[in-house]
Parts: sequence; structure tokens; C-alpha cells
Amino acid sequence: MCQLLGMNCNTPTDILFSFEGFHRRGGLTDHHADGWGIAFFENKGCRVFLDDKPSVESPVADLVRRYPIKSENVIAHIRKATQGEINLANTHPFMREMWGQYWIFAHNGNLESFHPEAGEHYRPVGTTDSERAFCHLMEKLRVKWSEPPEEDALFEEVARLAAEISANGVFNFMLSNGQSLFVHCSTHLHYIIRRAPFNTAHLVDDDVSVDFASVTTPRDQVAMIATQPLTDNERWTALSPGELILFRDGEPRLIHKQAG
Amino acid sequence: MCQLLGMNCNTPTDILFSFEGFHRRGGLTDHHADGWGIAFFENKGCRVFLDDKPSVESPVADLVRRYPIKSENVIAHIRKATQGEINLANTHPFMREMWGQYWIFAHNGNLESFHPEAGEHYRPVGTTDSERAFCHLMEKLRVKWSEPPEEDALFEEVARLAAEISANGVFNFMLSNGQSLFVHCSTHLHYIIRRAPFNTAHLVDDDVSVDFASVTTPRDQVAMIATQPLTDNERWTALSPGELILFRDGEPRLIHKQAG
Repeated sequence: MCQLLGMNCNTPTDILFSFEGFHRRGGLTDHHADGWGIAFFENKGCRVFLDDKPSVESPVADLVRRYPIKSENVIAHIRKATQGEINLANTHPFMREMWGQYWIFAHNGNLESFHPEAGEHYRPVGTTDSERAFCHLMEKLRVKWSEPPEEDALFEEVARLAAEISANGVFNFMLSNGQSLFVHCSTHLHYIIRRAPFNTAHLVDDDVSVDFASVTTPRDQVAMIATQPLTDNERWTALSPGELILFRDGEPRLIHKQAG
Repeated sequence: MCQLLGMNCNTPTDILFSFEGFHRRGGLTDHHADGWGIAFFENKGCRVFLDDKPSVESPVADLVRRYPIKSENVIAHIRKATQGEINLANTHPFMREMWGQYWIFAHNGNLESFHPEAGEHYRPVGTTDSERAFCHLMEKLRVKWSEPPEEDALFEEVARLAAEISANGVFNFMLSNGQSLFVHCSTHLHYIIRRAPFNTAHLVDDDVSVDFASVTTPRDQVAMIATQPLTDNERWTALSPGELILFRDGEPRLIHKQAG
């Protein structure tokens, strides 16, 4: 199973501390060694760093660890290949443009039986179930709306499509257009909101701590989302199966829970 | 004016030597200090490194200088902003997906009066004339063909569209889908084909030489294309205004010259 990491903030923030622990899961503290990637939104722009090397020995991961890119929305992924060869075209996160916005997507799970028809607007380049699901999602949204809809309507439609696609298997995913971060859980996803008063956090994967009070201002608010909690002295909230959350400005704004 | 650099080869090759000279033009030997970017195709996959810092002081450029990514098609760009703010969304090269292939584009010039209608399939995210031209080009190709056409037909159509768009100003550009590299000249572009017997080349921008014989095999063939020649002891060929060349496997395969 792959590992997902997401961040959504009310002010551009670097992800160095969390990435420090997360990237060690790519071949060191865990066995997700089939490539990795990270996307940083900076306003409307986006840069995606990809590598098909395991993240613990990747020169690109070294760069990301040293270069404090400040971003309001980040999505990272460490791959354990279930479908599709290990190559760059199959490395998450994936990017497409819709409505004059970049959209970034990463997936953890398996959608073996999912083979939707090729779209008019979006087609996969690689051979993963994940990119197929992403293109299908984009296609459905783009066909429904030729201009960006209201956020509530968009959220409802993403929830509907996520439920539909989830019928084909495990569909934990993160999706962002640089403003909001959509997070959908089939099996494992956890989040935490960090806001004042800030405390010291300690990484699960490495003996590293950070005192957030020393690197933040009192109005900063940061949502961190990960497959498994990254710290061992903070309280993370588990998402329930079928739950979709839209994070904006560092907090959950819209929540959809599956009827139980 | 911006600077363009392209490479097309018959075998995956690193661009370290040429990038060494090229990146110095971003703020050191020349004044193109408004960000830079480079895209590497690896089979169908593509990674794009972008930075809105000048390339001579960019940590991302440091990574690219040290990490020998082997690629058959590379497009790099150093920006001197003429239109659009200096930010990541306006940094070349730009990427879109068409026909299940990634397409990469970078532009040098100015198309001040060019404001085409928003497309059905592709829209700009940033505010540059360059991204507008790229999206327009993609839109026209996608509307004409819903599946990838024969290379000759595609080349003729790109030549027609390039001539049409060029009526709005200066349109030097590079475009690639990972198989072929299209290069169009309005004003300044030069290329060189390196093949056996290989010689030693010396950079214009830095006192660095490389003996290509020691790093190649006899069947390697590499086309380098740049705004201005990168070496001072090799013979570069200047493209003529209105000329479009399709490079494949390290050599010019199709050439369109403007009727004189």
C-alpha cells in the first residue's frame, strides 16, 4: 500500500518537518520503494517533483528536504506498485489543467476492475488504475461544468463520484486545485489541525522534534493529513470509510460521511 | 528576451554539459533572471523542474546540475519577463496532456496582440502570451484530431498554426511529446548535430570543455538547439525566420521553410 501526505494551510508554510518523517517510509522505515512525488501549489502555479527512485535515496528528495518551499497546498505520495510498471509515467501525483486551474491527484489503494471509457478531455498517459480514476473524475467534472462551479456543488459531485469509483476497490485519495484540498478515505487516513497555542511535535519515523511555536505566528492554521499519523505525541483524527473532507485555510470546511 | 535550450537524441542522454553553460545565462553571463525551468521526458513520463528564482542562484538548478537525468527529449527555458508577472504560474516550460501524451512547450518572443478565444480543452493558468499561444496550439490540434495523427500531417498543421500565430509577433518555440521535438524560429535559434566521430566541445559561457568521445558510443546521435550557440569551437546552424524543424532520434527529420 502506498502512503499519502497532504497539507492545507491559511498561510504559505513549509512542509520540511513532516516530509522528514514521511520520506523515510519510502524504503527505510517502511517498504514503499517504487518511486515517490510531491506537488507544491504556489498561488495558481504548481511544481511537481517526481522520482522513480525510492525516496530515501532520491536526490530529488534531498532537494525537497533542504529547500523550504512555502505552499498553502501540498500533496505527496510514496508508491508501492500494485498496478502498472515502476516508471515515471506511473509516479504520483498526477497533474491536469481544468477551468484554467491546475489539479493535482494522488491515490492509495487498488481499483483493479475499474476501466472507464476514454474521455473527451482527459486521458491517462501511464498504466495505473490511479491515473485512470483521476482522469475519469476530471472528465466527469469538466463535462458537468464548463466553468468552475460553486464549492458546495463541486464538493457534492466529488463525493458522489468518489462513492461510485470506490465500488471498484480501495480509493483513498487527495485532490487539490491550489485553493482547497479534497481528501477521501476508503481505509486509512488521519488528520490533525495545528493552531495556536502551538506545541512541540515528535516524529514517529525519526527521533526529530519541532517546536511549532518558534516557527509560526498566532494566526497560522495548518491541516496535515497522512495515511498513518506522523507524530507520536499529538492526537490525530481518523477518517471513516467513505468520508470526504474539503480542507480550506487549514481546517475542514465541508464533510461528507457515508450513510451508515 | 528569453533563452531556449532543447535536446533530442536517439538514446537517453544527460544534458549536464550544455545546461552548465545555459544556466549561467540566467543572471550571470546574461540578464534572464526572472525564473527558469526544464522538462525531461523519460519514455512517456515527464518531469518538469521550475523555479521563479534566477537560475544561477536556484537550488533546483543545483539539483539539475548534479543529477544526470538521461532523457531523449529535453526543453529548458530561462525567462526575461515581457508579459505576465514573475511567478510560478508564468514560468516555462508549460505542460498539458493530449491524446494520452504529455506535451511540453516553451517560448521566446512576444505576442502582445494575441488573445485567442478560450478553448474547450485547454486554458491558460497564468497570464503570459506564451501559455495562451500553447493552449491555442493544443486546442487547434485536439479539435482537428481526437486521436494522434500521422507525423507528417501533424507537422504540416503545426507549421500552419505557427505561421498564423507568428503574425502576432515573435514566436520562437520548442514543443515536444517525448518522441519528437518541434522547433520554430522567428528570429534566433541555432542547432548542432553531434555524432561520431565525436570531438571536444568548449562552452561559450564558462571555461569548461567536454570530450564527447569519452562519454558516448559510436551510434549516439544528439541534436542540441539553443537561442544562441552554447559552444565556441563547433559549427552551429542558424534557423531562418519562419522555419520549423521536427527533430527525431537526434536529427532533423522534417523541415518547413517559409516561402521566401
